[in-house]
Parts: sequence; C-alpha cells; structure tokens
Amino acid sequence: MSKDPLRGGRLGDERPSEVWGYLSSAEADRFIGESDILVDIGHLLMLKKQKIIEPDSAKSIMEVLLDLHKKGLAESVYDPKYEDIHAGIEAYIIERTGPDKGGRLHMGRSRNDEVATCVRIRLKQDIREILEETAELRRELLRLAGENLNTFMPGFTHLQYAQPTTLAHYFMNYEQAFGRDFERLGDAYMRVDMCPLGAAAFASTGYPIDREYTAELLGFSGVLENSMDCVSGRDFCLETISGCSILMTTLSRMCEELIIWSSSFAGFVNLNDSYCSTSSIMPQKKNPDCAEIMRGKAGSVAGALMASVTLIKGLPMSYNRDMQDLWPHLWRAVSDTKSSVKIMSGMLRTAVFNKERMAEEAGKGFSTATELADVMVRDYGLPFRTAHGIVGRAVRLGRLDIETLEKAGIDMAEISLKERGMDENHVRKALDVEFSVNERTATGGPAPKAVIKSLEKREYALKEDMEWTISLKEKTEISQKTMIKKAEELIG
Amino acid sequence: MSKDPLRGGRLGDERPSEVWGYLSSAEADRFIGESDILVDIGHLLMLKKQKIIEPDSAKSIMEVLLDLHKKGLAESVYDPKYEDIHAGIEAYIIERTGPDKGGRLHMGRSRNDEVATCVRIRLKQDIREILEETAELRRELLRLAGENLNTFMPGFTHLQYAQPTTLAHYFMNYEQAFGRDFERLGDAYMRVDMCPLGAAAFASTGYPIDREYTAELLGFSGVLENSMDCVSGRDFCLETISGCSILMTTLSRMCEELIIWSSSFAGFVNLNDSYCSTSSIMPQKKNPDCAEIMRGKAGSVAGALMASVTLIKGLPMSYNRDMQDLWPHLWRAVSDTKSSVKIMSGMLRTAVFNKERMAEEAGKGFSTATELADVMVRDYGLPFRTAHGIVGRAVRLGRLDIETLEKAGIDMAEISLKERGMDENHVRKALDVEFSVNERTATGGPAPKAVIKSLEKREYALKEDMEWTISLKEKTEISQKTMIKKAEELIG
Amino acid sequence: MSKDPLRGGRLGDERPSEVWGYLSSAEADRFIGESDILVDIGHLLMLKKQKIIEPDSAKSIMEVLLDLHKKGLAESVYDPKYEDIHAGIEAYIIERTGPDKGGRLHMGRSRNDEVATCVRIRLKQDIREILEETAELRRELLRLAGENLNTFMPGFTHLQYAQPTTLAHYFMNYEQAFGRDFERLGDAYMRVDMCPLGAAAFASTGYPIDREYTAELLGFSGVLENSMDCVSGRDFCLETISGCSILMTTLSRMCEELIIWSSSFAGFVNLNDSYCSTSSIMPQKKNPDCAEIMRGKAGSVAGALMASVTLIKGLPMSYNRDMQDLWPHLWRAVSDTKSSVKIMSGMLRTAVFNKERMAEEAGKGFSTATELADVMVRDYGLPFRTAHGIVGRAVRLGRLDIETLEKAGIDMAEISLKERGMDENHVRKALDVEFSVNERTATGGPAPKAVIKSLEKREYALKEDMEWTISLKEKTEISQKTMIKKAEELIG
Amino acid sequence: MSKDPLRGGRLGDERPSEVWGYLSSAEADRFIGESDILVDIGHLLMLKKQKIIEPDSAKSIMEVLLDLHKKGLAESVYDPKYEDIHAGIEAYIIERTGPDKGGRLHMGRSRNDEVATCVRIRLKQDIREILEETAELRRELLRLAGENLNTFMPGFTHLQYAQPTTLAHYFMNYEQAFGRDFERLGDAYMRVDMCPLGAAAFASTGYPIDREYTAELLGFSGVLENSMDCVSGRDFCLETISGCSILMTTLSRMCEELIIWSSSFAGFVNLNDSYCSTSSIMPQKKNPDCAEIMRGKAGSVAGALMASVTLIKGLPMSYNRDMQDLWPHLWRAVSDTKSSVKIMSGMLRTAVFNKERMAEEAGKGFSTATELADVMVRDYGLPFRTAHGIVGRAVRLGRLDIETLEKAGIDMAEISLKERGMDENHVRKALDVEFSVNERTATGGPAPKAVIKSLEKREYALKEDMEWTISLKEKTEISQKTMIKKAEELIG
Repeated sequence: MSKDPLRGGRLGDERPSEVWGYLSSAEADRFIGESDILVDIGHLLMLKKQKIIEPDSAKSIMEVLLDLHKKGLAESVYDPKYEDIHAGIEAYIIERTGPDKGGRLHMGRSRNDEVATCVRIRLKQDIREILEETAELRRELLRLAGENLNTFMPGFTHLQYAQPTTLAHYFMNYEQAFGRDFERLGDAYMRVDMCPLGAAAFASTGYPIDREYTAELLGFSGVLENSMDCVSGRDFCLETISGCSILMTTLSRMCEELIIWSSSFAGFVNLNDSYCSTSSIMPQKKNPDCAEIMRGKAGSVAGALMASVTLIKGLPMSYNRDMQDLWPHLWRAVSDTKSSVKIMSGMLRTAVFNKERMAEEAGKGFSTATELADVMVRDYGLPFRTAHGIVGRAVRLGRLDIETLEKAGIDMAEISLKERGMDENHVRKALDVEFSVNERTATGGPAPKAVIKSLEKREYALKEDMEWTISLKEKTEISQKTMIKKAEELIG
Repeated sequence: MSKDPLRGGRLGDERPSEVWGYLSSAEADRFIGESDILVDIGHLLMLKKQKIIEPDSAKSIMEVLLDLHKKGLAESVYDPKYEDIHAGIEAYIIERTGPDKGGRLHMGRSRNDEVATCVRIRLKQDIREILEETAELRRELLRLAGENLNTFMPGFTHLQYAQPTTLAHYFMNYEQAFGRDFERLGDAYMRVDMCPLGAAAFASTGYPIDREYTAELLGFSGVLENSMDCVSGRDFCLETISGCSILMTTLSRMCEELIIWSSSFAGFVNLNDSYCSTSSIMPQKKNPDCAEIMRGKAGSVAGALMASVTLIKGLPMSYNRDMQDLWPHLWRAVSDTKSSVKIMSGMLRTAVFNKERMAEEAGKGFSTATELADVMVRDYGLPFRTAHGIVGRAVRLGRLDIETLEKAGIDMAEISLKERGMDENHVRKALDVEFSVNERTATGGPAPKAVIKSLEKREYALKEDMEWTISLKEKTEISQKTMIKKAEELIG
Repeated sequence: MSKDPLRGGRLGDERPSEVWGYLSSAEADRFIGESDILVDIGHLLMLKKQKIIEPDSAKSIMEVLLDLHKKGLAESVYDPKYEDIHAGIEAYIIERTGPDKGGRLHMGRSRNDEVATCVRIRLKQDIREILEETAELRRELLRLAGENLNTFMPGFTHLQYAQPTTLAHYFMNYEQAFGRDFERLGDAYMRVDMCPLGAAAFASTGYPIDREYTAELLGFSGVLENSMDCVSGRDFCLETISGCSILMTTLSRMCEELIIWSSSFAGFVNLNDSYCSTSSIMPQKKNPDCAEIMRGKAGSVAGALMASVTLIKGLPMSYNRDMQDLWPHLWRAVSDTKSSVKIMSGMLRTAVFNKERMAEEAGKGFSTATELADVMVRDYGLPFRTAHGIVGRAVRLGRLDIETLEKAGIDMAEISLKERGMDENHVRKALDVEFSVNERTATGGPAPKAVIKSLEKREYALKEDMEWTISLKEKTEISQKTMIKKAEELIG
Repeated sequence: MSKDPLRGGRLGDERPSEVWGYLSSAEADRFIGESDILVDIGHLLMLKKQKIIEPDSAKSIMEVLLDLHKKGLAESVYDPKYEDIHAGIEAYIIERTGPDKGGRLHMGRSRNDEVATCVRIRLKQDIREILEETAELRRELLRLAGENLNTFMPGFTHLQYAQPTTLAHYFMNYEQAFGRDFERLGDAYMRVDMCPLGAAAFASTGYPIDREYTAELLGFSGVLENSMDCVSGRDFCLETISGCSILMTTLSRMCEELIIWSSSFAGFVNLNDSYCSTSSIMPQKKNPDCAEIMRGKAGSVAGALMASVTLIKGLPMSYNRDMQDLWPHLWRAVSDTKSSVKIMSGMLRTAVFNKERMAEEAGKGFSTATELADVMVRDYGLPFRTAHGIVGRAVRLGRLDIETLEKAGIDMAEISLKERGMDENHVRKALDVEFSVNERTATGGPAPKAVIKSLEKREYALKEDMEWTISLKEKTEISQKTMIKKAEELIG
C-alpha cells in the first residue's frame, strides 16, 4: 500500500490495492512521457520570462528537466504509487531540487491543461507519421498503376465479373481514396495543433501567464482560446480516431480483395511469404495473415471509436475522470493505423500480380456485354434499354454471337440487327476486352489514355501533400530546437 | 407478386413477396427523389450537347423531367414493384415517351453513379442546413455570453464545485466547441462536393460523355476522378455521419448539464414549458424532455456511425448491394442532427437562468481556495506545492480563516503566515468570488475583460462562417437555376 | 399547433411545431398499439376485481376496449398531437365514456409501467417468431446435410483450400451455430417474460392492486418484482438486440460464403433468381443481392446494439425520456432479424449446389497433405512435426509423390521413407479425397459415419426446441383468450 | 530478425521486423499460458490411452509439462520469435525431449482447436470470478437494503423529484438488476463450457482420438460437436462480452447516481476517501474518481463489444487470422468487468449515506402530490384524471393546501372538495412522506412491509446463485486435480 504526495493535504484513508490499479493511467502515460518534459520546459521558460518564478528556482528545475530530456525519463516516474506521470515527474523534480524550488513549477497550470497539451504534442507526431506512411502508400500505388496500364483484369460488382478494366485503374481507385484519408487526417491535425496550456483546471489562472508564448515555444499553430473548452474538449480525439477508422476501412476493403485474390479460386496475386504464415497441421498452407490481421484491426479501431464516443457522450463540463479511459483507445487507434499503412505498402511492394490469370479471366462471364449493347446503340441506333434487353436475352440463351442476338432482337423488339448491318465481326470486335477498355476514355476511366492523364494529376497532388507533411515536421523540429536552446541559455 | 421492368431480359423466376420488401430501398429513396430529377436533367443536357442522343428524344424526355421538377414526383415512382426510385422514374418516362425515346436517357451511366450523385446533391443540402443551424446556435451562445459577463456561477470538475466562473465563460466554451463542429462538417462538405456522374457501373463508358459539364451543371465544385472510386467510395458518408456524431456529442454534453441544472437540487435554469413535459401520474412534474431526447439521439447517431463503419468495412470493389443499407443510417443521422441543433437554439433562447441561485452557490465548497493558495505564493513567496498543501489542510480542518491557515502552515511546513504579514482581510479578499474571477484575465479566461476580447474574435469568426454558408447556398441555387433555364431552352 | 390533454394542469406555453415532432414516439408506437389494448383490458379487470373502480365505469370502458381489440385501433390514437399512443387511447376512451368514467382507467398505474408492459408483450411475440424462423432454418440445414453426406468439397481456412470435407459437414456447422443463437434468444425470452405492470411511475401505488393477477391475465410467467427496476431496467432490450446481433453475425458469415461461392471464380452455388438482381447497365449480371443486403443488415443491427448501449449507459434511476429513443432500434433489430432468417431459409431451399465443381476442387491445392503426414506418422512411425516438415518441403518442391517425399525426408531429417516401406500406392491412397474424409470419424468430424450420428442428435434437439416454441405460443394464446372471455363477461 | 520453427518447411523469405510485431499475439497469450499446459496434459493423456503415442514419448513430454504446470511457464515461451504461445511451448518441449519425442504431442490436433480450448478454460475461470464478485455485490446491496428500510429519500424521474421512496427500495432495484446480469453471464458460461478439442484444423483428424475423454479430463460439461463450428464459432466470445457490457451498463448507471449524489448540490452520500482523489491545483477537492473511471470503462467494454462484432461479422468458414484480434478485446472486457464489480462492492461498503439530507429532500417539490390525488380518488370519489388535474392546477398556483385545492377544484371541474368533506388535516396527512411511502405495499413497492417480503425472496435467490457458483468452481478443481494425478501416475 503506497502513498501519492498529492493526497497529503486533503484526503485521509489508505487505499485497497485494487483501487490503485483501477485508477492508474500508467500504461497510457508512457505515450506522453517525452512530451511532458517538453511541456514542463516550455512552461518554465514562460514562468521565468513573466517573472512568476525567481531565477534560482527556474535554473535548478531546468537542469533536471534538460537532463530528463536528454537521457530519457527515469523509470521511477511511472511508478504506480503516483496517480499519473505528472505526479511522478513533479515528485522526481522535488526530490532533486527540494520542495521550495521544485514545488514552484506547477504554478499557473493544472494537470488538466498539462495532460491535454502533452497528448496534443504526441498526437501531432503520430498523425504526421500516419500521413507520411499514407503518402508512401500512395506513391507505391501510383508506381504500380504506372506499370500496369495495360494489365487487363475483370472488374467486379457484387463480386461478380462485371466489365473488364485494368490493374492500373484499380490501383488509381485506391490512391484516390487514400488521398482523401490523407486530407481528412490533415484536417484533424489542424484542429489538434492548438495549445491548451494555461487553461489550468478550466478557469485559467490569476498568475500573469503568457499563453501565446508557450504555444509558440511548443510549436503549436496557436492558442486554443476558451480555457474551459481547453480541458473539456475531446472532439480532437474523436475526430482523429474517426479519421483513423475511415482510413482503416479503406485498408480493410483492399485486404478483403487481396485475400480473395490470393485465394485458391482466384490466384490473381501471390503475396510475399514475409506477409504470410503456414499452418501447424497443414504443411501445404500459405495464408495471407497480414491482410487478415489488418481487416481485424479495422474492427478494433472501429471499437476504439465507439468506446470513445460512448465514453464522452454524457459528460458535463469540465474535466471528469472518465476521460482518462479515452487515452488507451486513442493510442491504440493511431498505433494500429500507422503500422497497418506501413505493412500495406510493404505487402503491395513485394506482391507478385499474376497478369496472365487476370487477362485470362478478364473476358469471361460476358463481361463485355455492356460494350456490345452500347455499340448496338451507337452504331445501329437502338434505344439503350432495348439494346440492353436484347443482349440480356442472348446471355440467357447462352451465347453472344450474331445469330443468337438476331433471334433475341426479333423476339423481344421485332428488330433485325442483321438488316441494320450488324455481323459477326462487329460482334466480336465489340466483345474484345482490349477494345472495350480502350474505348473508356472519359475522365477517370480505365482506358490507358485516361489513366495516364489521371496519373499526372495525382502525382502532382501527392507531391504537394508530401511537401506539406515535411513542412509540418520541420516546423516542429525547429520549434523544439529553439526551445531547448533557450532552456540551455537559462541554465547558463 | 409484381414485376420489375429491368428483370425482363436476364432473370426468370417470380419472387416471394418478402423478398421485394427485403430488397426495396423505397423509404430511403424519398430523400433523393428531387435530386434524381436534377441529375436526369443534367445528364440529358450533356447527352444532347455531346450529340449522344438525338434532339427529338431529348426534347420528349426533357418535357417529362421538367414537369416532374415543377410539380414534384408522382407517387407511382416509389412503387415497391420497382427495385428503386431510379427504375421507377425510368419506367414513368418510358410510359410517357415510349421505349424508343425514353429508353435512351440511361445511356452512358448506370444506377451506381446515378445514386451516388443523387445522394451527394441531397447530402450537400442537408449539411448546409446543419451548418446554418449551427451558426445560429453559436450566435445565440455569443448573445447569451454578452449578456452574462458578470453572472457568477460555480465551475465544476468531476461534478464537484471547483472554482467560480461566469455564465459568459461557460457559453463561450460551447460556442468554441460548436465552432469546431461547424468546421468539421464544412471540411466534410468539401469532399462531398465532387461529382461522380459518368462513372457508370464503375468503369466509365465508351460514350463520348463530358463529365466536367454535368459536374458544373449540377453545381459541384469538380469531378470526382477515378470512376471505380466514384461508385465504391463511401467514406464521404462515414465522414459526414462521424461529423454529425461528434456534434451530437457536444450537444449531449450540454444537455447533460441542462438536465442537472434544471434538477430539483440545482435550480440553475428554468427551461421553457414548450421544451418540457409533465407526468401522466405526478401532477407536479416538469421534465426536461427535449434535452433528454437529444442526449438519446446522440446515442442513435453513434449507432448510425457504427452501423455504417461495420457495413462498409469488409466490402471489396466496386459496388455491393450492402451499401444500400447505409442510406437509412445516413439520412437518420443528418435529420436527427439538424433538428437537434435547432431545438437546442430554441431551448437556450427561451430558458431562464437563475442568476441568484448561481451566485449563491458560486462561493460554496471552498471553491476559491486555489486563488487563496495562489495569493500565498504571489504575495508571501510560498512555494506553490507548499501553499497548496497548507490550504488543503485548512480545508480538512473545516475553515479558511487566518487562524486555521496559520495552524496548518506551522504544522505542515513550519511557516508562519502571520509573520509573513497575512491577515484576515487578505484571506477574505483572496476568497472573494468576484475578486477571484476578475483576476483570471489570461487569454480565454473567465474575467469579464478576457471574455470581452474573446467575444470580439469569435463574433468575427462567426460572421465569416455565416458568409461562407450563404455563399455555398447561393452557388447551388444559381447553378440549379442556370441548368433549369437550359433545360427550358431545350424544349423550346 | 395542437394540444395534449395531459398538459392542461401543469404546463403553460404553446410549443413550436418542431418540438412536437422531436418528442413524438408515433412511429415506434405502432408496434405496441395492439398490446396496449390488452394491457388496458387486463388492468381494468384487476381494478374491477379489487373494487378500485366501480362496476359502471368498468363496464363502459371495457366496451370501448373490446371494440378496439376486435376492430383494431382507430388511426386517431396515433395523432401526433398526443405525446404518445397511451395518451391517444386515453383520450379516445374519455371521449366515448366521459371524463367521469374514462378518467378512472389510469388509476394505480403510470405510462412508465404501461409502456414497459406493452413492449414486453410485443417483444415476446417477435422473439417467438424469430425462434420459429430459426428452427425452420435449422430444419432446412439438417435436410440439406442429410442429402449431402457424400458431397465432397474443399474446406477452407484463411480462404485457402485446407482439407477436404463434405457439404453435409458444412451445413451441420451452421445448424449447430444457429442452435446456440436459438438458445440465446430463448434465454432472453425468459427474462422478457416478467410483468412490470403495477410499478406505476416507479414507486408502485397506494391503491390495493393485485400485480400477480394482471401478470397472469396477460400471459406472463411472473411478476417483475422491484417497482423501480420495472420502469428503469432496459437490459431486457439490450440482451434481445445483442442476441439478434449475434444471430445476424452468424447469418452474415454464411452470406459472405454464399457470395464467394456464387462468384465468377468459384461457381459452387447457383442462387435462385428470386433472391438475385441484374444490373441496369450490364445485361449479363446476376447478383446475390439478398445475401449482400443481409450482410449489410448485420451491420445495421450491430448499430442498433451500439446505439442502445450508448443511450442507456449513463442514465440514473428511474425513468428518463432518452429511453424512448431506444424503441426504434429495438423494433428495427427484431424486424431485420426475423426477415433475414426467413430469407436465408428460402435462399438455401432454392439454391442449386454445384456438386461437380465442388468435387473437382476438393482435392486441389495439396489439401490432403495433412492426411499424408498423418499416415507417415501412423504407418511409418515418424514424429508428427518431422512428417509435417517433410510434406511441407515436398509441397514447396511442387509435387507429392514418393520420389519427392523421399528426397525431402533425406534432406530434412535423414529419413528414408522408402526404406520404411512407403511406396507410390500408399502415397496416392493417403492423398485420395474420399479416403481422407472417411478417415475422419471422430465425434463431429466430416466422415459420413460421424455426420449421421450428429444428425440424429441434432434432429432430436431441434424437435425439442420446436416443441418448446409451440408451447410458448400456445400459452400466450390461451391466456389471451381467457382474458378476453372475462372481459366479455364483465360487459355482460 | 528471428525465425519461427513452424515456417521451416513451407515458407521462405525473412520477415521485416514490423511484421513480427504486427502478427504477434504475445500480449493476449499471457492470459492462456496456464490453460495451455492443462490442455497439453489432457491431450497427452488421451493420446496415451488411445495408444496414438508410445509410452516413452508420452512420459518424456509429460515430465516437462508437469514441471511447467508446477513452476509456471518459462518466459521464453512468450518470445515474439514464435508466432504464438503454442509454438513457443512446442519448441520448449522439443528442446527438452528431442524432436523424435516432443514432435509427437501435436498429433490429432491443430492450433485452431488448441487455442479455442485454452480460451474457453481461461474464460470459464474469468466468468466464475465475475459471478462471485457479482454475488458479493448483491449481498452488499441486500445488507444495505435491510439497514435502510425506513431511510426516506426522494425518488427521481427525469432527474426531477418525483415521489418519495426509501434507500432500501433503491438498493433492491439494483440487486434485482445485478441478479439478471448474473443470470445472463451464467447462461453464457453454459455455452462456453463445451470442449472443442479434437476438431483439429476444422475437419477433425484421422487419428483414433477420444474427444469425450479429453473433455472430461479438462472439466468441461461436454463435447462441442461439429468440428468446423469448434474452430470457427466465436459467438461464445460475443455473448460473454455482451453480457459484460450489459453488466457494465448497470454499474455505470449506479455510478452516474453516486456521482450526482456526492455532488456539491446533493450531498446524499460521502464516498470513502480511498475511492476518491483530490486535485493538483484545487486543494479543497474530493472527486469520485472510481465511479467516474467505472462509467468510462462501461464505454470501453461497449467498444470491445463493437470491435468484436465488427471483426467477426464478415468472416467465412472456418478459421481466419482476423480472429486473433478478438482476444485482446475479450480479455480487456472480462478484466474491466471483474475489477469494476469488486470496486463497486467496496465503494458501497465504505460509503456513508447522509440520511438527514435525504429525508430533508424527500418531501420537497410536491413529491407526494400523486398520493394526494390518489386520496381524492379513494376517499372522495373523484375520477382519477380530474383529481390529477386539480392537484396539478394547485401546484401551478404554488400551494397544496385545502384553500388552493378547493379553488382549483371549482375552477377546473366545479367540484367542491370541502363539501365532499376534505379538510386541511386530510391534505396534510396525504402529503406526509412516511404515510405516502407506507401506503405503497403492492408487490415490489417501497413500503417497508413490501421491501421485507422482497428481501426474503431475494436472499433465497442469492443463496442459490452462490451455491451454484461454488459448485462450478469445485467441479473445475476436482477435474483438474484428477487429471494431474493421472499425469503423475503416467510418469510413475
């Protein structure tokens, strides 16, 4: 049975041991250990500049902080005898500088604004890394698209062969979708990137603090204004988890396809052994485990989203302890997302797509029948719905040749296609996979000509996104370096 | 047992009646009836311009479409004998113009891109209305803040009295939070506002369509490029529902407070009778029903989010029928959100806040003890943690007067406050609610001076947001008017 | 702007029209209209028996109630001007009997216990119907299993061919799973089947009511005792929705398979046209729409579960209006589940399984390699892990014949299989699909011998479950008839 | 970069390090380490009895297993170089006994049935512990009820004072609700308690195994028959998590109340310091942290439920790797539930309920007005709805005395209460809290007389439930002892 220094003044009784574990946030605190030191340094610089703390105390505390920043946090700060890492670090500092000095760092703030600031700093880093990995994945997809402009494959609706397309067109689909996932998390980033420090418990403080100064030191884009909102608002978490969940949904859909494509039936893709496993009993098996786990993690992140919404939904202002239970969901969501995007890049980079199998299947299942109906409209003037009906009837009769079509045309609409000039050559040409795909040159269509145009636009968009991601990272690094330099100047 | 005209060509058997109901999307289709006519008109104008359809057919079909646009949809198009409204409208047109003409409208598109376009048009309208209502709610909150700069009240953490604040500061908190909810749905709007028309089933079409033209006619910001993504992507729905769910979470938290504040205990607010109900058995009751229902609807929208993520998560490319089950969740989420925001505005506008009760409670529960500790640091040079400990001990002893504090100071840290010059007057001043609040002038703090500064910034931000909302609406209306004018010119 | 009779006494202001819609439960009330009349009849019989109401009033009210019971509810009771159907019915009765008589029906109860009782009566009926449909589905599966004892097919893990099995074994799998889904909803039924009537608002009543009597009249198994729990407890809803969601998950998994099996790749099953649809643009398509919608509805029911848990999670005792928003989720969940189970039965009954395709694929992909390894252990004494390794190596070399195995044995473990007596005949026999399956005679295994044993047990279990379902229905019908008879005696 | 022994035969490439972490189930495996040894022992005893393994190998392996059983698992078995703990243990055994012996333990089973069996054994233990803790909590509630039969308090609906009740009645409410939560998890237990061992990969095995024997050795109630269902079915997890989630919902509702009751407004309860925390900045605070965390964990368990349903929903037969991602959700759900129930017992046991405050508030807010209306019906023959209206009008006029009531009676219904014999004494008596509560003697009502009856029934029910829980535990312990004894006999 241990004691928390914070409890000394107000609370009396000893605690049953299960309560310590129940209340502890130790596991989640590991995510914000380093950020916490940064926040302490920034806060201390401000206290000094504003003359809230005397130079001597500031110097002593800063020496300890810079030491922790350089060498990493001591394990003792995570000791479950402290309610959380903030109490752990404060105790560590007081131990080294004495209560008269160390006890002054917490002036003008509270754990409520402190934890919100730490989480935002760490979360910004995590989002940036997801953005980087997502950009990398998009680059991989564009590369694959560029290499597969003429790789014909069956396109699906309802998992049935529908119309032929190309592997390039398929990859462009996902690149565009991941592009939106990127934007969405980028938008979330902008709302995470506001500094709540200085809000204290929720009502700010009577000390003459300078919130704009700490926000700048810590590399934030600005100050999150209303102090009650600073400590109560968790929509930045919900939005980030939601952005992760939507991204995971896109990944999960691609996994569903890779699993089906690598199934015994399809044989469209051969995933690299590194991303697969075998069976403990069936020696011949090669299973697409990474893709399955990723599909599973999409469920887990959805669960994190749900937990978080449920948890926050009924809470009044301002801080409530329930909020602590949000952190593990947040960190799990961003970690799972980050690793999943990275794994997907690697899985695609090393996969071997079986172009022959794809080409072989591309023309099956009457998949070019739509093009045939369209040709009957364009070249022989039939109304669309009539042409669609005639081709459908011929499919039901089992063949798409001029004789069957002629019969269907007369049966259904008293139209002789032969009289209108159609012959077997026209039929065959219309049913040809390559012809069918190459015709589809509309914006965003699968014809190589159209895909090349799309590729140019998307490569440009990706370049811009990558540059933005780098600029975010650089801004953070410069701020941090500048702050550490000021801290070093302070200790002389 | 009825028949769908689309089934004639390919499918044979009659259906058990329960299957018709199971597959029908009739209820959700009512949301997109009007959009569907707009899409038909835009598509037809393009077919005409591109010479894909001959003028005669175009004219006949357009007459029917303009008629439907002006008089509203005939009930017959929703007949469950059609699989969906698109089949219903096509049948309606063919009936009036004959199969040779009416059967040509569907050239160069599919129901897959059609429905995606209809949904986006309608959804844009819904989001715009939510944005308008949210801006209105923010205006109400700023108005209330402006009127309550000096309305003191207890601020809470853990639902315990923590520190005093003002009602203005509280309202500013929510205005800022709803401001982010506004931004988030605004960001979603930008991604909804891309036109998928022309993607056809998923592989675009061989007809020489002009996707940029229809996108412009229908008032979209641009073309959603890759055609497979056009019909498969549903992240725009997930994002919108997620934005609604987060907004509902903010509303729900405010409801939780209004319910507690209007409880028998608190008596902080008297909600207008219109938003309350009585009991069938307890004649004295007045219950905050609207606030409770709203809290409930936050759960319902969270459920819609979960349903949608779960539903989409495992679907391969491109279209799968599961997606149809997404629509009811989408429409329910945006409807519930829209009405909830509106009700909240009305509930706040008509509520009577009991300022005397609030003021009476503001100083209770040692809520200014933090300020007292701060004063001991600022004026008498105590380390923060020591001052915190002394005040905490005095609270435990039951009084915050100079004698008790003196005793606590000596017991805990061998510090005599009296010797440092503290007397009862200083203590009383430090504990005064008004003094305590007025000291908190940092950016975003509750001091009236600080709130006035925030108000200016937020009013400016709101003004910009409102102008943007209006511009979105105007752009839509102008596009639609222009398109209808072209349609009227076509029929001469 | 309309008025609710209940509001007269206590509440003043007129309501904005949007509030009426916001608070109305009209849509969900349609589910409990008939139950409500039954509850009124039961309650009135009890009031009469206990002499709480005088005979004259009882008779007048009962005449109206019996009329509504026989002819169905008047549309007017659903008028949104009433807050709910209970107010609508009370108004209808007062209108016909005058306030002096009709105003007495509500003695000794409240809407809180009334609605809880109505919902439980209706929900019992819905659960019974789901149980009946599930039993029917299980019967269909057992029938199909009985017909396919020797229909060999590839079994899958990770969607890869793993080991051969039979279609019978596959159907038995689902029958067993649906058997648990049946049990689970049966357990939920037992907890729904307790009567909350007489709890009034939550504190019961001072009238000398007889709760046991109404519980018996209304066909409940017993009285739900604590009166606060009667009106606050909603775990019976959560449990039912959860039971539905788990059942839908089982259905969804089967749908996933039917969709893959009917895909262009697999061709294992040909679903009946009635359960499929075609495309508006691709005339050759036949899509497994019912299976897809069902998979989608599994997501919707999961959403209903989530909404309900989220909604209830933070509510204090006893009744809160949020609870009203639970009903639509409940009714949607049970309706979707009921229709889905029924559709699945029909889909299976009419499906044509392609036994040749299945048999053709059953032996592919080295799927009998496990048996070969086992034979090497059983007949030639190799350690299991060694045999597994040797076969795995041979698979990698591309062949499973004696030469390749010999080479693998020597390479990996310096074991000569030939020296131990293995020859090509043994290898072929071990790899034979029929041999491999027939060997697997352990309890629950795929060998026809084992499946026949399972069939007997499961048929017996199903018979018992069906009898129980019938007994529940009969009990309900008898109670209701008895009650109506007493009501008719009352009016003479 | 490390290697898994299983991969040797079939798979080639080295893995990027991130893949190892991505696929590893190490964290969740710690929950089933001990169960795994039990399963190995049971399986080995069966192999020996069935003469599938020769005595020598059996003895060598058993020695290692018994050693692990007694001393606990070596840390090395969790090494992430193994895909999971099953591979880790097998490697450990082979290392100690050589491949020729140790490689034989895995005969006749697969990791698929092994993990399912391990999870069920451990889960049974967890459910039993939750049942025990829940029984304990119910005992605490019954004790508190027995002590507070005459502790009057205000009852709430919509968080408004509604009617007076007693603290005993309130506790009985929760005991009844937790009783159902107990039953529900008990039902789940019955479905978890079936043994899947022997199903192997999904198609059972050709070895002459005896599934009934291992089921008995391992203390299961029976064999889970169909072998495909054994490894594919995860509804036992969904049901358990769902049962936990519903239980957490009940707990969360109680927490919501304890938080409101301990708020500055209410002061109904003083939670023990052990279950509270203070603030880092506000020295006077005492926050109900455990209750808040518990409310938060209700959200987390709801998220686990959602993750699990989403994850399983789309999976075809039989095993898919996604299922691995279910385990962390399962273990988290049962752990959080178990600790929460325990904490709640302790929090109630040590809480001090402020009976004076409760009594003081019990009669406020016209909370006995219903009783007054009832008295007007019972003693003066008014129709219920009329009496309700008169009392409501008087409440609106602000007083409940005979003069105001008389005025209201004449205004609303031309009824003179005075003429009917009512006087001020009658009014006062009817409004008396104690009188009002004591009148409510119907089954399950708050009158002490009624609560005493309920107490007897519930104490009996609890006794039965406790005995059942103990019997489950004893059955498990006896089975395990018997099995270990046989294992020791085997090694002589």
